[in-house]
Amino acid sequence: MDEFARISFWTNEGQAPDLLEARGVRLAIGDDAAIVAATNKEDRNEAYDWLYTVDTMVEEIHFKSETMSLEAIGYKALASNISDIAAMGGIPMHAVVAISIPSRYSPQQIKQIYNGIYQCANQYGVAIVGGDTTSSPHSLVLTITVIGKVEAGTAIRRSGAKPGDVLFVTGIAGKSAAGLHLLLNAHQEQHLAQHHLEMLKQAHQAPQPQVAQGRLLHDLGSCHALNDVSDGLASEAAEIAAASAVDIVIDEQLLPISESLSQYSACAQQSTLEWILYGGEDYILLGSMPTEHFAKTKAAFSEQGMELYEIGRVEQGQGEVWLEALDAKLERKQRTCLSKRGYNHFI
Amino acid sequence: MDEFARISFWTNEGQAPDLLEARGVRLAIGDDAAIVAATNKEDRNEAYDWLYTVDTMVEEIHFKSETMSLEAIGYKALASNISDIAAMGGIPMHAVVAISIPSRYSPQQIKQIYNGIYQCANQYGVAIVGGDTTSSPHSLVLTITVIGKVEAGTAIRRSGAKPGDVLFVTGIAGKSAAGLHLLLNAHQEQHLAQHHLEMLKQAHQAPQPQVAQGRLLHDLGSCHALNDVSDGLASEAAEIAAASAVDIVIDEQLLPISESLSQYSACAQQSTLEWILYGGEDYILLGSMPTEHFAKTKAAFSEQGMELYEIGRVEQGQGEVWLEALDAKLERKQRTCLSKRGYNHFI
Repeated sequence: MDEFARISFWTNEGQAPDLLEARGVRLAIGDDAAIVAATNKEDRNEAYDWLYTVDTMVEEIHFKSETMSLEAIGYKALASNISDIAAMGGIPMHAVVAISIPSRYSPQQIKQIYNGIYQCANQYGVAIVGGDTTSSPHSLVLTITVIGKVEAGTAIRRSGAKPGDVLFVTGIAGKSAAGLHLLLNAHQEQHLAQHHLEMLKQAHQAPQPQVAQGRLLHDLGSCHALNDVSDGLASEAAEIAAASAVDIVIDEQLLPISESLSQYSACAQQSTLEWILYGGEDYILLGSMPTEHFAKTKAAFSEQGMELYEIGRVEQGQGEVWLEALDAKLERKQRTCLSKRGYNHFI
Repeated sequence: MDEFARISFWTNEGQAPDLLEARGVRLAIGDDAAIVAATNKEDRNEAYDWLYTVDTMVEEIHFKSETMSLEAIGYKALASNISDIAAMGGIPMHAVVAISIPSRYSPQQIKQIYNGIYQCANQYGVAIVGGDTTSSPHSLVLTITVIGKVEAGTAIRRSGAKPGDVLFVTGIAGKSAAGLHLLLNAHQEQHLAQHHLEMLKQAHQAPQPQVAQGRLLHDLGSCHALNDVSDGLASEAAEIAAASAVDIVIDEQLLPISESLSQYSACAQQSTLEWILYGGEDYILLGSMPTEHFAKTKAAFSEQGMELYEIGRVEQGQGEVWLEALDAKLERKQRTCLSKRGYNHFI
């Protein structure tokens, strides 16, 4: 197959024409650049801002074949980008895909990566409109750029947190890290129900970016700051704290824990709290809003079957993140300053 | 330096605030996604389409340290993307930069790559609004996505060439390939004036994408099809021929040749024609327009100090590209079908 035949094999029939039309795509793959209408019919009376985000996944750094199928690599590469748009309160619209391929990969294997990309794209209504394929001497490198939109001037930044705000998450952190641990130790006998193991693996391999949650927070209008949890709860909190020039206090007792996570961490003799704070790649949203808005926001989330947890608060400060926990001996709360460690990749 | 310090070191003060403001940038580097206004003040009464293009440069595949400085790598990576926007008749607006860095590169070396990117960005008025930096186990990989705009419905595609059209180029092909040959054989004594050698090296290391030429063709409104010459004249002509379902005839006698190119190819005992047809990376524009518009278009180009050369014509056909040359013995023109060879990278 020549380059054109390969690209056609990878991308043909990946998406329904309806989806491309709904996203204003005039011309997708096959010219010097893709063409999309800046203004859709439904947008005529509304000004939008455009959101750009890019993420790269490098073989051996971000994934290994033992823990990620080729389809999962494609799915997750797009999902992590969509999550960045969700964290701005935006709608993901279009994506371009750049892939550098070592010669040991067959066109069929690359097709599996594209299948994963298209599965995620179709699930979230993202039109894949272009790309670049090159060879690579050693590692597979997959870079996806996603373009989204949000009503003009209303993107939710990480810099808006204010003292007195409630700190919240839209899901449970730590499952992806536990899933990775499980996949790396798959040879060990696991004394755990199959559905727990599956949930953790899925959390690592096919994270679900929270576009609906981001849009609901955006539409309710009271969210002050928002980040997606790609690098771990502690690290994302530190980014909000630094950008907003506030301190953030995470209350250990409030942190939601999934049963799968707590059972697996006990079984694997690992620290649940460590995974929650430093695991990363959960792609839930972490943010802050005024206390008086929290209850009705939580109710709105519940109505739509979505989760919202209060996990702490925002205080005046210099950009530090604190973990507050009850000291059983002293019978009072103690604070630990969380060093900004973030997510450690394989290398 | 941690990741934030490095990114700040590479990107700080790269661009004037005026440029970012003129490009509608509300928020550049430093959040989950960049935010740009879809509608600038000057655009209020005009609908635009957005153009997306992405290109990757991989160490050992697209560049080697013998032939490209780190600054040149950065400059050329952005230039090749800007050229794709030029080939649609568009205006380059924004870029996001993804770079995967092997540990043997120092932050200072990466800074040189960014310096090259910013030099090109500032020259062409492109706002660098975001990116992703990761490590890479072996090769440096640089992926740049450029977003441009063009008045709605007026992008110049490669599929519009019509029988009877004049085939034209906006510059001289082959110089980049000659420059690469020169750089790879720099140890050989070159019996050529320094300014010829410099021109060829510059053509390879710092190609000048032809945004002004693309915009002039766009504004004059008569251009039927347009491609930028990234993969060689023959290959780009084949893309237009296939997309437009026509044959393209290149007239060898009409092909413009630079003096530097002809002198160097004679000196290096290489075929000038081979470099012109198959060299690639010249980033001039190749297109077609109705015969009756050519003279006044050429005059408009001349007025602005820009070049336009007729090099052949479009005929009815099945998507083939022909080279027509005078056979001296037979005293008549002969045609050769140009196989689609394109540009051969190092590997």
